[in-house]
Amino acid sequence: MSSNAQPSLFTCTQQSPDSHFNSSTKSKARLGCIRTPHGEIQTPAFIFCATNGAIKAVTAEDMRVERTQIILSNTFHLMSFASHIKKLGGLAHMSGWGGPTLTDSGGYQIFSMGYGSVAEEIKCNRKFPGKRPNVKISEDGVVFKSCISGESLFLSPERSIEIQEEIGADLIVAFDECTPYNVDRTYTEHSMRRSHRWEKRSLVRFNELEAQKPEYALPQAMYGIVQGGVYEDLRKESCDFVNNELFFGQAIGGSLGASTEQMREVIGITMQQLRADRPTHLLGIGRISDIFDGVEIGIDTFDCVHPTRLARHGGALVKGGDPHAKGDAREHINLKNSVYVGDEHPIEQDCLCQTCQKYSRGYIHHLIKKREILAHLLIARHNVRFMNDLMADVREGIATATLPQVKNKWLGSK
Amino acid sequence: MSSNAQPSLFTCTQQSPDSHFNSSTKSKARLGCIRTPHGEIQTPAFIFCATNGAIKAVTAEDMRVERTQIILSNTFHLMSFASHIKKLGGLAHMSGWGGPTLTDSGGYQIFSMGYGSVAEEIKCNRKFPGKRPNVKISEDGVVFKSCISGESLFLSPERSIEIQEEIGADLIVAFDECTPYNVDRTYTEHSMRRSHRWEKRSLVRFNELEAQKPEYALPQAMYGIVQGGVYEDLRKESCDFVNNELFFGQAIGGSLGASTEQMREVIGITMQQLRADRPTHLLGIGRISDIFDGVEIGIDTFDCVHPTRLARHGGALVKGGDPHAKGDAREHINLKNSVYVGDEHPIEQDCLCQTCQKYSRGYIHHLIKKREILAHLLIARHNVRFMNDLMADVREGIATATLPQVKNKWLGSK
Repeated sequence: MSSNAQPSLFTCTQQSPDSHFNSSTKSKARLGCIRTPHGEIQTPAFIFCATNGAIKAVTAEDMRVERTQIILSNTFHLMSFASHIKKLGGLAHMSGWGGPTLTDSGGYQIFSMGYGSVAEEIKCNRKFPGKRPNVKISEDGVVFKSCISGESLFLSPERSIEIQEEIGADLIVAFDECTPYNVDRTYTEHSMRRSHRWEKRSLVRFNELEAQKPEYALPQAMYGIVQGGVYEDLRKESCDFVNNELFFGQAIGGSLGASTEQMREVIGITMQQLRADRPTHLLGIGRISDIFDGVEIGIDTFDCVHPTRLARHGGALVKGGDPHAKGDAREHINLKNSVYVGDEHPIEQDCLCQTCQKYSRGYIHHLIKKREILAHLLIARHNVRFMNDLMADVREGIATATLPQVKNKWLGSK
Repeated sequence: MSSNAQPSLFTCTQQSPDSHFNSSTKSKARLGCIRTPHGEIQTPAFIFCATNGAIKAVTAEDMRVERTQIILSNTFHLMSFASHIKKLGGLAHMSGWGGPTLTDSGGYQIFSMGYGSVAEEIKCNRKFPGKRPNVKISEDGVVFKSCISGESLFLSPERSIEIQEEIGADLIVAFDECTPYNVDRTYTEHSMRRSHRWEKRSLVRFNELEAQKPEYALPQAMYGIVQGGVYEDLRKESCDFVNNELFFGQAIGGSLGASTEQMREVIGITMQQLRADRPTHLLGIGRISDIFDGVEIGIDTFDCVHPTRLARHGGALVKGGDPHAKGDAREHINLKNSVYVGDEHPIEQDCLCQTCQKYSRGYIHHLIKKREILAHLLIARHNVRFMNDLMADVREGIATATLPQVKNKWLGSK
């Protein structure tokens, strides 16, 4: 159990990585369990993005059937609706999910607004540093223009925590600036230090709100975020900060570099510094190969829109890669492809999801061609089960010291 | 059991309307059961439109949970895919549904193409007679332009039945011309007589295909269609034709007039002439009040896109009408409406559908505003259950001679 000031309804346990240390792979993979008022999360685990309080095209009932443990929603997307969410019983109840939930702080989306595509900027696919005419940052907080109503909105550490309290997720996140890749070291350093001050203010407001809660209200627990971009000394400074504050968990945020190699390096440096007695989340990472990299370095939880977004475009996750795919798209097959006309097979022969139990690739291909949204639903449900089965296999691999074999099963030989 | 030449896997029974005759309402409502190789349909029943072989936004699993008995698909929409459907095990298997299915003949959609909006023309909302530049009718059949590929396609009685054999629904429909409202009596008469010749050719081809079927293939059963527009003598002539041919069931098609009163009159005349020992279907009718009218005059099955189409626009069916609605829109509430912001109640307090068990109007309103397709799914699931519960109540009302009370419960006092 971690030593922090969080309410006793929250606990986390991690089995020492040493007990499962695999000398041949130098894996730091570890098993753990996060207990929340809405249930347990066995880690390593994947967290699905229910941006607006709903998984795209998948019901809460189906999320449960497909072995989901936890979903996350975005404060930025829900902030104008937060008081209604509270009235409707909080995120877990309102969404019909009923299980553990997490909200981010809103920072990621706001700071990405000025950069055009969020994902492109964070993942360094944009070649020029963006300007942010719609975002004004001060020590106090951030003023930004709503992309929906056009009105000026304000978010600060205090306001973010108040909104997250209204939304009522079990796990919430301190307010920070997500520094992108294309800013210089000086900006990254100043931004990180301001984020530290904001995270402290987040904690203060969080503790105030927890203290004021009526008895019937469920407690929440907060994650700190490590910033520092790709700079080793800044990452260390940020780890020191997070380690010393009374957070329940910790997340690795900010730019992780321009390549998979740099990402591994940055996460490696960070994980060496971070305390091991708290659940550790890697923000926005969801490719199968990246998950194995993260698990092997001690990450407990991951989140990404990838599995459900992919489904919207006809992409179904498959083990061992797609024989028809070119390049690095080998973690999925695209059911739009005409090779699937009349294909009687399910997406995966050995998958136990509701979609693979009943529906063929040929049928789903037909639905895509007819623009039936059922196609999206059927694929999304498979992708959700795929990720949950992957994480269950990863946990089994850690428990039995067979993680390399598990990795080979899911990634195939490339 | 009806006296016809259909395979013994198909039977239908109807309890004599007299045994349930309610002298105060003069109801001819009757209970029945249609047995197919894929299961039984207790009638009166509602048939849901799975146009492309999929209910819009609802899985086959959910259709089953929400008490659905039978779905229908459209030959026009599936004709280019029919051979693949056969390869994928036929409509019931391919779609994951597994229960009874029906296909129409394709005629309705083809003959409506030239008229702009199908529904508008058939329901007489268009004020001018349409031209049909894309449709050429001869005694042989119909040549029309595909609205998808632009290529010339051909459909005849024989071709329609061959396609319906490939799709493999339990119940299929003879090929006819659906005569619209805005044509004169002479056209309606000529069209009806040609439809009769086409229906005979449909039966010939159907019997040939049935005789050729391998042992493992499931038999199908065919419905004839009554045409004749709004003209009493033509309807009688068409009833005579259908009564004397070896159809398994019979459907009432063509224009039913420009008003609810005229529709009642046309259906009334037709039902007086039609034999009572066959299941009788009323094409394209799905409003609650129209269903009660149909049931009281002896109709066994109904179909309409209304429940699922309504869901796409935020409309949820409710008993007793919408207190916020104006005019004749009182069979549903529109969850887009801002009065539902933060509303904690389910769509209907007494509904046992999966949506009403877990989700509030306020949450669904929020999902509509955020353009989450889950909103569509949740409402569609409710509307499906609503129609199935309505029909179950109707059957209970007939069995216990309390249909007027049932009608009052579902329609409310207006």
